[in-house]
Amino acid sequence: MIKKVLVANRGEIAVRIIRACREMGIETVAVYSQADEEALHTQLADEAICIGPASSSESYLNMEQIISATLVSGADAIHPGFGFLSENSKFVELCEKCNITFIGPSSEVIQKMGNKAQARSTMIEAGVPVIPGSKEAVRDVSHGAEIAEEIGYPVMIKAALGGGGKGMRVAETRETFAASFQTAQKEAQMAFGDGTMYLERFVRNPRHIEFQILADCYGNVIHLGERDCSIQRNHQKMIEESPSVVIDEELRSRMGQAAVQAAKAAGYTNAGTIEFLLERDGQFYFMEMNTRIQVEHPVTEWVTGIDLIQEQIRIASGLPLSYRQEDIKLSGHAIECRINAENPDKNFRPSPGTITDLYLPGGKGVRIDTAIYSGYTVPAYYDSMLAKLIVHADTREQAISKMRTALGEVIIEGIDTNIDYQYEIMNHPDYQSGKIDIEFISKWQR
Amino acid sequence: MIKKVLVANRGEIAVRIIRACREMGIETVAVYSQADEEALHTQLADEAICIGPASSSESYLNMEQIISATLVSGADAIHPGFGFLSENSKFVELCEKCNITFIGPSSEVIQKMGNKAQARSTMIEAGVPVIPGSKEAVRDVSHGAEIAEEIGYPVMIKAALGGGGKGMRVAETRETFAASFQTAQKEAQMAFGDGTMYLERFVRNPRHIEFQILADCYGNVIHLGERDCSIQRNHQKMIEESPSVVIDEELRSRMGQAAVQAAKAAGYTNAGTIEFLLERDGQFYFMEMNTRIQVEHPVTEWVTGIDLIQEQIRIASGLPLSYRQEDIKLSGHAIECRINAENPDKNFRPSPGTITDLYLPGGKGVRIDTAIYSGYTVPAYYDSMLAKLIVHADTREQAISKMRTALGEVIIEGIDTNIDYQYEIMNHPDYQSGKIDIEFISKWQR
Repeated sequence: MIKKVLVANRGEIAVRIIRACREMGIETVAVYSQADEEALHTQLADEAICIGPASSSESYLNMEQIISATLVSGADAIHPGFGFLSENSKFVELCEKCNITFIGPSSEVIQKMGNKAQARSTMIEAGVPVIPGSKEAVRDVSHGAEIAEEIGYPVMIKAALGGGGKGMRVAETRETFAASFQTAQKEAQMAFGDGTMYLERFVRNPRHIEFQILADCYGNVIHLGERDCSIQRNHQKMIEESPSVVIDEELRSRMGQAAVQAAKAAGYTNAGTIEFLLERDGQFYFMEMNTRIQVEHPVTEWVTGIDLIQEQIRIASGLPLSYRQEDIKLSGHAIECRINAENPDKNFRPSPGTITDLYLPGGKGVRIDTAIYSGYTVPAYYDSMLAKLIVHADTREQAISKMRTALGEVIIEGIDTNIDYQYEIMNHPDYQSGKIDIEFISKWQR
Repeated sequence: MIKKVLVANRGEIAVRIIRACREMGIETVAVYSQADEEALHTQLADEAICIGPASSSESYLNMEQIISATLVSGADAIHPGFGFLSENSKFVELCEKCNITFIGPSSEVIQKMGNKAQARSTMIEAGVPVIPGSKEAVRDVSHGAEIAEEIGYPVMIKAALGGGGKGMRVAETRETFAASFQTAQKEAQMAFGDGTMYLERFVRNPRHIEFQILADCYGNVIHLGERDCSIQRNHQKMIEESPSVVIDEELRSRMGQAAVQAAKAAGYTNAGTIEFLLERDGQFYFMEMNTRIQVEHPVTEWVTGIDLIQEQIRIASGLPLSYRQEDIKLSGHAIECRINAENPDKNFRPSPGTITDLYLPGGKGVRIDTAIYSGYTVPAYYDSMLAKLIVHADTREQAISKMRTALGEVIIEGIDTNIDYQYEIMNHPDYQSGKIDIEFISKWQR
C-alpha cells in the first residue's frame, strides 16, 4: 500500500487529494510555487516543498524539480491531479524509471490515448463508434463528393491545418457540397497556404456525454455512469451533471459498455473518462479519452457514493477494484457549477486579486471543493477556477432549486466571479427543461 | 400547500429551514432579536422582523410578538425549529386559534408527551417498554423490598423531590436493599424535608438510542432508523451517529416498531423522536418523546437521503408521507460533532465574542450546518452551539477518519471552542471501537 503521496498540483484538487490521503492514513507532501506560499494546499499537507517561481513552466510543470522533491521527501507515489503534468507521458516515464508510483495509467497508455489518430484507430478496432470521416486527404471536389456520400450528410469540410473555424464549412446536402468545398478550400489556402481537406460527419447540436471508468491491474473495468457536460463556453466546461436527462437505462448500458470496451482496448488502468458526442437520435461517437481524474468527478461521486480519489490510490497500490459493475447504482441527481474568477460582462476576462470577504453556503446536499479562504489572493498565473459548487437532490428539478439557493448565498468580494452568470443559466427555461447541447452558451449569447 | 413560512428561531436551524423553504419555492420570514440584527438568518430570509430585545424571554419566547409578526407578514405557517417555543403547547394552541399552520404536531399531542407521567402511561398502554418502577410511593423498607423483587435488581431508590443525585442510591442486591433505602430516605429528609421514595430498575451504562419517526395526517407512520447519542456531557449531547454499532437488523426492526407504536399511540403527526435507553443485553426502555425536529437530524438525513425539514413542511401542508417503510434504507455511516463556543479546560464555560478568522472544511462527505461567518459576533444570550460538523462515509471507521480530518482543518479564531476536545474523543480507543455509553464522558474525565 502507498504510504506517502506527493501531490503534484495546486488549488482545490490538491486539497481534495490531501484530504483523501489523510482519511486513508497516508502522509502527504505538497509542492508549491513561490506564488503559492500561502495557498491552502501548502498549509494543509504534512510537508510542503517549494519547487520554483510562480510561472507554471518553472514550478508545476518542472518535472525534474517534482521528481527530486518526491525522492527527497521519501514519498512513494505522485498524484498528478488534472492539468499540469497529469497527461504528460514523459513525466510518467520518469516516475516509472525512478520507481515512483504514478497514480494514473502507464506512460504507454497516456501516449497512445493522447495521440488523436492512434486513439481513433484503437477505438475503431475495439468496435467503439467514432465520427465517420475520410481516412486520408480529399483530392478534389468529385473525390470529396464520393466520400461525402459514404459518410452521409450533413458533412463537415475541414482544412488539415485548420483552426478557429477557418477553412471549415458544413455541407447540408449533396446539392451544396461542391460550392461549400470550394469556399472552404479557398479559405484554407488563403489562411494556411495549404488546401489539404478532410471530411467528417457533421454532428448537429450534440451533447457532451462522458463516462467515468475505473480499471484495476487485473483486467477488471467498470463504468460509473455518465456526466452530461454540454454546458460549455469555448470548449471549456461550466456546468456538469449526472445522470443526463436524455440517457435511459438501455442507452446508459450501451454507452457504458462502449466505454469499458474502449478502456480495455487501450489497456487502461486507474480512473479515466471516455468522452462521447451524443446526437439527438441516440447515436454516439467517441471523442477522446482523458487519462486522469476530471474536474467534474464530484457529480459521479455523489450519485454513486464512491470516493474516486481514494479508489485511484487503491488501484495504484495494486488492489483490485472495490466494486463490481452490478454494485454501481446511480441515486438522485448531482449538478456542479464551476465558480471562476472572471468577468462575464468583459468577455470572461480573468479577475485575479485578493478576496476581501468570503461566505460559502453549506447544509444538506451541498458540497464545496475549493482552496480559497477569506484574505486569500488569487494569483494571476494559473487557472481561474476558484471553487466547485456541487449539489445533490432526489430529482433534477430539486437539484436545480438547490443550486439556485446555494449560488444565491455565495459572497465573494474583492474579485469578479461568474456566480450571477451561473445563476442565470440555472434560471434558463431550456436548461431547466434539459434542452441543452454544446451550443447552449453560444446560442444564448447571440 | 404552505406558501410562506415564518421561522421562529435563530442560528443554524433557522438557516437550515430558510434553505429548505427556498428550495421548495416557499417564501420565508425571519424573526430576530436586537442582538441578531447581523445574524445570518436575518440576512438570508426574504423578510426579517425584529421581535424584541436580546433576552430570549422578550424575543424568541415572546409568543404574542411572534404571532403578530406572522399575521403582519402574511405567513401562513410557523416553523419552530428546536428549543424556544418548539414544544410549548400553549404557543401551538395560539397558532391553532389564529389559523396559522404550526409545522409540528398538535398542541394536544405536545402537551400529552411533555407530561412525563402521561407519556409513560401512554407508552405502557401501547405496549412500549418503559423502565419498570413503583407506580406509587413506597411506604417503608419492607414494602420497598417487595416492590424491588418485582422490578428486579439492581434497583434505583429515588426521592420523590430528588435532584442532583441527592436522596438517590442504587441497591445492587436484595441483601443491601434495606441499608440503601434507609440511607437514601434519611438523605432525602435532610435535603428536602420529605422522605417519600420511589423505586425503579437501575439501567447500568445504557446507550442513548433514539428513533426518528415521520407521521402524516392520514395515520401513516414510519421510522428512519436510529441515532446513537450516547456521547453526552451533563445530559447534553455532543456527538451523534447513525447507525449504532450495537443495533442489528432484528433489533432495529423491534425498536423501530416500538417507536412507530409509540407515535401512533400518541396520535402523533409530523417529525418526532422516540428516545430509548438501551441495555447491553438488548433490552430497551422508552425515555421520552421529542415532539420537534432535533439538532442531530442531519445524521439521519445522510444515511436515509431524506430531507427531514422539507418532509415536515409537506406533512404540515396536508400531504401524505413521501416514503413507505420499505423505501427506507440506511446507507453508510454518518457522525455529527457539535462545535460549541465553550472552553473545555474551564469547565466548558461559554465563550461568546467575535470570530476574527474562520475557515471551515468541505469536500466529499462533509456537511456543515452553521450560521457563523468571519467577523460574526457570537452573542452571550443564547445557546453556545456554533456549528454542526457532519460527515458520511461507507463505514464507521472511514467516517471517524473523515471527522478527524475535517476537525483538524477547522479554524475559528477569537473565541474558544470544543474542537480539540471533539478531536480527542475521535481518537479515543473506546470511541473508535464503539464501546460507548452515556457515562463515556464522565468516566473519561474522572
